[in-house]
Amino acid sequence: MSLANEKLLGKVAMLSCLDDSYVKQIEKLGWRYCVGKVGSMESNKVVAAIETGAKKEDVIKGSIYRETHALYHAIMEAIYGVTRGHVQLGTVLRTVGLRFVVVRGNPYDQAEEGDWIAVALYGTIGAPVKGLEHEAVGLGINHI
Amino acid sequence: MSLANEKLLGKVAMLSCLDDSYVKQIEKLGWRYCVGKVGSMESNKVVAAIETGAKKEDVIKGSIYRETHALYHAIMEAIYGVTRGHVQLGTVLRTVGLRFVVVRGNPYDQAEEGDWIAVALYGTIGAPVKGLEHEAVGLGINHI
Amino acid sequence: MSLANEKLLGKVAMLSCLDDSYVKQIEKLGWRYCVGKVGSMESNKVVAAIETGAKKEDVIKGSIYRETHALYHAIMEAIYGVTRGHVQLGTVLRTVGLRFVVVRGNPYDQAEEGDWIAVALYGTIGAPVKGLEHEAVGLGINHI
Amino acid sequence: MSLANEKLLGKVAMLSCLDDSYVKQIEKLGWRYCVGKVGSMESNKVVAAIETGAKKEDVIKGSIYRETHALYHAIMEAIYGVTRGHVQLGTVLRTVGLRFVVVRGNPYDQAEEGDWIAVALYGTIGAPVKGLEHEAVGLGINHI
Amino acid sequence: MSLANEKLLGKVAMLSCLDDSYVKQIEKLGWRYCVGKVGSMESNKVVAAIETGAKKEDVIKGSIYRETHALYHAIMEAIYGVTRGHVQLGTVLRTVGLRFVVVRGNPYDQAEEGDWIAVALYGTIGAPVKGLEHEAVGLGINHI
Amino acid sequence: MSLANEKLLGKVAMLSCLDDSYVKQIEKLGWRYCVGKVGSMESNKVVAAIETGAKKEDVIKGSIYRETHALYHAIMEAIYGVTRGHVQLGTVLRTVGLRFVVVRGNPYDQAEEGDWIAVALYGTIGAPVKGLEHEAVGLGINHI
Ligand SMILES: [Mg+2]
Ligand SMILES: [Mg+2]
Ligand SMILES: [Mg+2]
Ligand SMILES: [Mg+2]
Ligand SMILES: [Mg+2]
Ligand SMILES: [Mg+2]
Repeated sequence: MSLANEKLLGKVAMLSCLDDSYVKQIEKLGWRYCVGKVGSMESNKVVAAIETGAKKEDVIKGSIYRETHALYHAIMEAIYGVTRGHVQLGTVLRTVGLRFVVVRGNPYDQAEEGDWIAVALYGTIGAPVKGLEHEAVGLGINHI
Repeated sequence: MSLANEKLLGKVAMLSCLDDSYVKQIEKLGWRYCVGKVGSMESNKVVAAIETGAKKEDVIKGSIYRETHALYHAIMEAIYGVTRGHVQLGTVLRTVGLRFVVVRGNPYDQAEEGDWIAVALYGTIGAPVKGLEHEAVGLGINHI
Repeated sequence: MSLANEKLLGKVAMLSCLDDSYVKQIEKLGWRYCVGKVGSMESNKVVAAIETGAKKEDVIKGSIYRETHALYHAIMEAIYGVTRGHVQLGTVLRTVGLRFVVVRGNPYDQAEEGDWIAVALYGTIGAPVKGLEHEAVGLGINHI
Repeated sequence: MSLANEKLLGKVAMLSCLDDSYVKQIEKLGWRYCVGKVGSMESNKVVAAIETGAKKEDVIKGSIYRETHALYHAIMEAIYGVTRGHVQLGTVLRTVGLRFVVVRGNPYDQAEEGDWIAVALYGTIGAPVKGLEHEAVGLGINHI
Repeated sequence: MSLANEKLLGKVAMLSCLDDSYVKQIEKLGWRYCVGKVGSMESNKVVAAIETGAKKEDVIKGSIYRETHALYHAIMEAIYGVTRGHVQLGTVLRTVGLRFVVVRGNPYDQAEEGDWIAVALYGTIGAPVKGLEHEAVGLGINHI
Repeated sequence: MSLANEKLLGKVAMLSCLDDSYVKQIEKLGWRYCVGKVGSMESNKVVAAIETGAKKEDVIKGSIYRETHALYHAIMEAIYGVTRGHVQLGTVLRTVGLRFVVVRGNPYDQAEEGDWIAVALYGTIGAPVKGLEHEAVGLGINHI
């Protein structure tokens, strides 16, 4: 049970989210992943967009609840990083424009650690007026 | 008031935190920054390490409270991303090992937007036992 | 000021919420109570359903604000247990199906401790898709 | 960097919010300010009303994002005091009626501390029924 | 159940906390109260100082738990206003210096609303270095 | 993916925590579990006691991090129910006396949902003075 340096799941997800040229590293690792974008004042739409993306690209199996559950909590943890303190957007008059990357793989040396999921978010958060915004980042990690 | 693509403060801070080879991009932009490491079960030590690093490298002026105040809130926002929900470490039996990068610059097209500060964190969070941990990330952004 | 073992308000409320056969224990204690159900993605509807139930069964007097205030905070504390971290449902794309029991009585040995109110919740929380859910519980206690 | 007793920004904002006769003290200090009222179940409307008031009275410049950003975080901090724990109103079935005062000035002895902004809130919070409410207060302070 | 304008409990507590000359208004209303000061990096010491002050001045009866419970939650709500988001001081490297006023009375027109308690806090919060601080305020209200 | 009525994991854990006579139902289901007690002002000791209990009784395998991770988050969610809003005990001058039950099993109809873990807590929370306390409950559920 120790993180393997050459397959740091969270790092590769976050780097791929910040810089598209890293995505090929995920592929080299043979891991399932998806990339997408979502912009909304409604936090539930952010959750839904990531869930839909991950299911469409078979990162998780939609027919098994434990996989949806693992992804859901990883998404919520990533959104905490973006919203910093209260998981709210429009209800506190702000909006986000985010790129997301979801990656699934085993970042540990031991095979029995099984699959983990990383949800990386990068984009802007701010007032619902173009330009009144700054950058934000979030990363959620969960066993799946 | 719009973010300039070639000088995205948060992105360059986060990338530099994840991958040391990006640090030279900060230097190319002519921005002040510092890089450091901190491992602790005490969240106040994480705050202190980042503040000390930023003051020693003149990222902020320690003699002006508004600069300390701007940095403090950026640190707290970054820690939210790492802790996801409650800004606690040892009191909930977990510890962190983090690399931090603090960068100061103007990411906007308009000069009057002045300086902003980004605090990027990347590392591991977990039980106080080697290996019982996963990755975590945080980014705090503030005007300074 | 010590809790009396044979009249633990929170325990009897929680047990009655989990297993209907315990409700008769509340009646034996001579305490006022109500039992109800609510399913919603809107947290305000959960609050409203419990308040309405408690007023209709005379667990609290709707005409006195201090009683509504005591109940409201007990409900909010119970919802914290169900939502664990942020008191949100639909805004984070989840829904609940809950059974609730509100009980009013004095669980202490001393008569001067007066009445207290317990709000117990048990049910499921999850995605707005049948089956994508797990169980959840909450208990709020307040003096009234 | 020490607070000057005769120009305590937060105190004068809070006192002016509680008692209109204090507003002339703000004027004596030569500080920009605005006074307004907002009643709503929607927390975004509270944020919007304060932002609009502050921009109309030139307390902040709407064309510079750093000023909007400073005000936004001061508003959010003030709303924390009013809501105490979760920045939610209608979604937890409650409403507010608030008077707000926003003041901008330098409360420190040192000129280089520059301008700071205080957002003071006072009013009532409670059920969406007249009278089922109690008082609430909030103060947010930020460098600008 | 409507707040009586001439006996607004929260307002008189907050004003008395900000400006000592208001304390005589509490006395004119015939209400029990206490005034005190506390400075600490430990949030539990802030709670203890206020509880001790309120018991010593007979604002609450220490022998009845429901009174301690009412005061405790009012204190916690007031501290939320001071700390804005996470009820922590030293663990996030900050300290407070606060004046507190606790008042007990019935702010409503109806006698059956009984006694309510208000905890008002005013002072500074900041780094554990003299001067690196700004003002903060909190108000907690509860039925007792 | 639907909860099976006769094997509701959370319900059986919570009932067993409230009433010892239910523990034999867990055994009838053939599920692994542990029962224990912990009293402390330090939230990390509560976490540690539950983790130790679950490892000693082989409810989870201590050598696999994903199992520790699943248990940790279930514990934290259960503690949210007990603490209601901020996961703090001694730092806000309160203490707990809790009985805990950890159960591991598959509450769903489908075998592929695999094992889930439930952490149930019941006991008292209050001031560090005997009797100045009321009941509290928490339930955390996670896939493992
Ligand atoms: Mg985790
Ligand atoms: Mg911001
Ligand atoms: Mg309580
Ligand atoms: Mg501040
Ligand atoms: Mg209240
Ligand atoms: Mg869950």
